[in-house]
Amino acid sequence: MSNHATLLLVDVQQGIDQIANGRNNPAAEDNIAALLSAWRANNRHVVHVRHSSQESGSPLRPDTPGFAYKKCAVPVAGEMQVTKSVNSAFIGTDLQQYLNDQSVSSLVIVGLTTDHCVSTTVRMAANLGFEVTLVADATATFPRQGPDGKHHSAETMHSINLASLNGEFCRVLTTADVLSGVTGL
Amino acid sequence: MSNHATLLLVDVQQGIDQIANGRNNPAAEDNIAALLSAWRANNRHVVHVRHSSQESGSPLRPDTPGFAYKKCAVPVAGEMQVTKSVNSAFIGTDLQQYLNDQSVSSLVIVGLTTDHCVSTTVRMAANLGFEVTLVADATATFPRQGPDGKHHSAETMHSINLASLNGEFCRVLTTADVLSGVTGL
Repeated sequence: MSNHATLLLVDVQQGIDQIANGRNNPAAEDNIAALLSAWRANNRHVVHVRHSSQESGSPLRPDTPGFAYKKCAVPVAGEMQVTKSVNSAFIGTDLQQYLNDQSVSSLVIVGLTTDHCVSTTVRMAANLGFEVTLVADATATFPRQGPDGKHHSAETMHSINLASLNGEFCRVLTTADVLSGVTGL
Repeated sequence: MSNHATLLLVDVQQGIDQIANGRNNPAAEDNIAALLSAWRANNRHVVHVRHSSQESGSPLRPDTPGFAYKKCAVPVAGEMQVTKSVNSAFIGTDLQQYLNDQSVSSLVIVGLTTDHCVSTTVRMAANLGFEVTLVADATATFPRQGPDGKHHSAETMHSINLASLNGEFCRVLTTADVLSGVTGL
């Protein structure tokens, strides 16, 4: 199974809900749960990444309740956990070494948020040589304000960021796509 | 001067023009030239990054004319050059080591394209601990198609990607902003 894709969950933590209002895709957690269930049922590799913020007041500080995993993504025994403190799951962690040691060459990435930690981790994974699948409906993000002051909805941020990633850094699929072909990934 | 910002130029190469039609911000090259001129006039650090594609048919292969720098960004003696073959200027290169050796802590990033190599380099620079300024009107990108088949203009790709980067990975300024305060950066 070593060449089959590892499921990499990025920042599926309770504190994410406190960051802002207006998130898109409320189904992300259900889709993450469905993927995680399929991976476990097939005894496939799962890696949980979580963010340990060093910023005062952040809901993702390790000494706050928000640091905890969401219920849809609590690790079980034997699943690797990686703690990071920047957007990329590969900086300041042993994730790359771990994946190499396990002969992992392919990643299916889900989590939060699409354009910050997920995008950064997808980009770096691809540039480090991993084959990456990003699951569009198992990610979500927040509205953002541009440097020109313009407001952009979460759905716009999400879809445009997926368009930047698709084909260049990863293939973007849906949960249904992945579940229907899970044994081929 | 070592703590003042280094100007980092990403993929300002002739072959970029052959990638696609519909690019936004045709003034990017003039703005890059203006910034480069100001940096040189103040004897500031400049680093030129260029892309050496390994893909057959790419206009950025090192054995093609497109590999050459654009006229607005030809290095002069004493300016560092870095060659990369993925999106991030920090992967497979000695850029991080070079900047650390030079005690550089702050980067002003320009170049092509906003949402691929520029965004990836900005993100990784920030996550590695550099203070990053991205110059909005000294970057540009192309139209993209989303995984859902929807077409997005270059200007949409550009502005939404800047909104994802601004405040999280960098501050986004204009060429005029930077030139008016160049000695403070």
